[in-house]
Amino acid sequence: MIPAIEQHRSVRQFLDKPIPETVLTQALIAATRASTVGTMQLYSIIVTTDAELKQKLAPQHFNQPMVTQAPAVVTFCADVARFEQWCKQRDTQPAYQNFVWYVNAAIDALIASENFCLQAQNDNLGICYLGTTLYNASEIADILQLPRGVIPVTTVAVGYPDPKHYPIAVTPRLPLEAVVHKQTYHQPTPKQIDEFWRETENSDQTRRLITENGQPNLAAIFTQCRYTKKDNETFSKKYLEALRSQGFMQ
Amino acid sequence: MIPAIEQHRSVRQFLDKPIPETVLTQALIAATRASTVGTMQLYSIIVTTDAELKQKLAPQHFNQPMVTQAPAVVTFCADVARFEQWCKQRDTQPAYQNFVWYVNAAIDALIASENFCLQAQNDNLGICYLGTTLYNASEIADILQLPRGVIPVTTVAVGYPDPKHYPIAVTPRLPLEAVVHKQTYHQPTPKQIDEFWRETENSDQTRRLITENGQPNLAAIFTQCRYTKKDNETFSKKYLEALRSQGFMQ
Repeated sequence: MIPAIEQHRSVRQFLDKPIPETVLTQALIAATRASTVGTMQLYSIIVTTDAELKQKLAPQHFNQPMVTQAPAVVTFCADVARFEQWCKQRDTQPAYQNFVWYVNAAIDALIASENFCLQAQNDNLGICYLGTTLYNASEIADILQLPRGVIPVTTVAVGYPDPKHYPIAVTPRLPLEAVVHKQTYHQPTPKQIDEFWRETENSDQTRRLITENGQPNLAAIFTQCRYTKKDNETFSKKYLEALRSQGFMQ
Repeated sequence: MIPAIEQHRSVRQFLDKPIPETVLTQALIAATRASTVGTMQLYSIIVTTDAELKQKLAPQHFNQPMVTQAPAVVTFCADVARFEQWCKQRDTQPAYQNFVWYVNAAIDALIASENFCLQAQNDNLGICYLGTTLYNASEIADILQLPRGVIPVTTVAVGYPDPKHYPIAVTPRLPLEAVVHKQTYHQPTPKQIDEFWRETENSDQTRRLITENGQPNLAAIFTQCRYTKKDNETFSKKYLEALRSQGFMQ
């Protein structure tokens, strides 16, 4: 298997060591080699290394320490603005500020982000995706000065892993048959669901989490502590509003 | 650079040659090694090789010939259903059928899809992403028997490239400075926009397209022929409706 894929771990503790320009550039070029709808490259990649700006971004990512510790915070944005600007300069009327083009552009941005991450890891960097990007997309858009037609989709913290914490074991995954369906979708039986989660539920880490959180099981940790109904609904509303204010719902 | 990234070309002509099970499995395992929100693996991968099913899918992808010609059509879906089923079996109340979890799950599905594609290409397969997945997501969901909480995000046609058509040159990209922004977003000047597109606009392929389409310039081909306002608005509405009917807008 491609080593960067096989050996991927999320890295959350970084050395205070900048990324050489050539290494970063190589990962950014790798990002642009990804497939892109109609060769339109509907994304922008914001590389933030400035300490003050990272400080401003940190609370929007719920003060996860890697935002200030990582030498670079890279925000991958769906971007139809650049393409529309070009269309307008060529006296045509573009109409890409709508929902399906948000999704098209987000697809472009995300497969580019994975190329970036794999090339970075291939060059001994560590990466961590920050899902928090969706929760405060408007605030991040303000800090990064995104115009209409541009919205953050995901963020990657990148830097050299702190050897005090790494290497670590790869994170277990569900058995392949849990996520792969042949020909059409096959809804799992209750017994299969139990089997899919058995290894995860019986791990030492899960036992520790259950004790720490005072919850009856791992599913309760997800639904009651980590990702609650209230938060899910709040952040759904917020991201839809961000899509509207960035011009993607016309 | 990682060879599979550097040498990526979209492949649209395939040999009539099945993919060995071991090769396909390796690419699927690669998909599952991608980062995933909260280790939740909010995606399902539907591998369709059955000729009759591919025939049914073809019109939903506007009869692009690779849907029937490729030995495997792989549909990457955002899937919160499996996770919710597990939560319910553990007597908890999950609330992931909403918009932000659609986006979280789509992110999971897309970075998994890129790992799949890179590993497949590393094993001499060719791939092509099918953006058409978004346009007829409900119809594809019906054919693939997706339950509520599952929606298609992208599709990859995969198989051995027909040597009559390949290798071909890699597709040019905009200069790196067009898509990469340092610290914050910098809106390009009109002169920069002209520079970014100069190579593409001056290519033989563009000249040929302009003649074939009878349009004044490349931007007009995009806005008047390929992706028109009417279509963009229709498909935006359709995909939002598909999100609603698959249960992601609660």
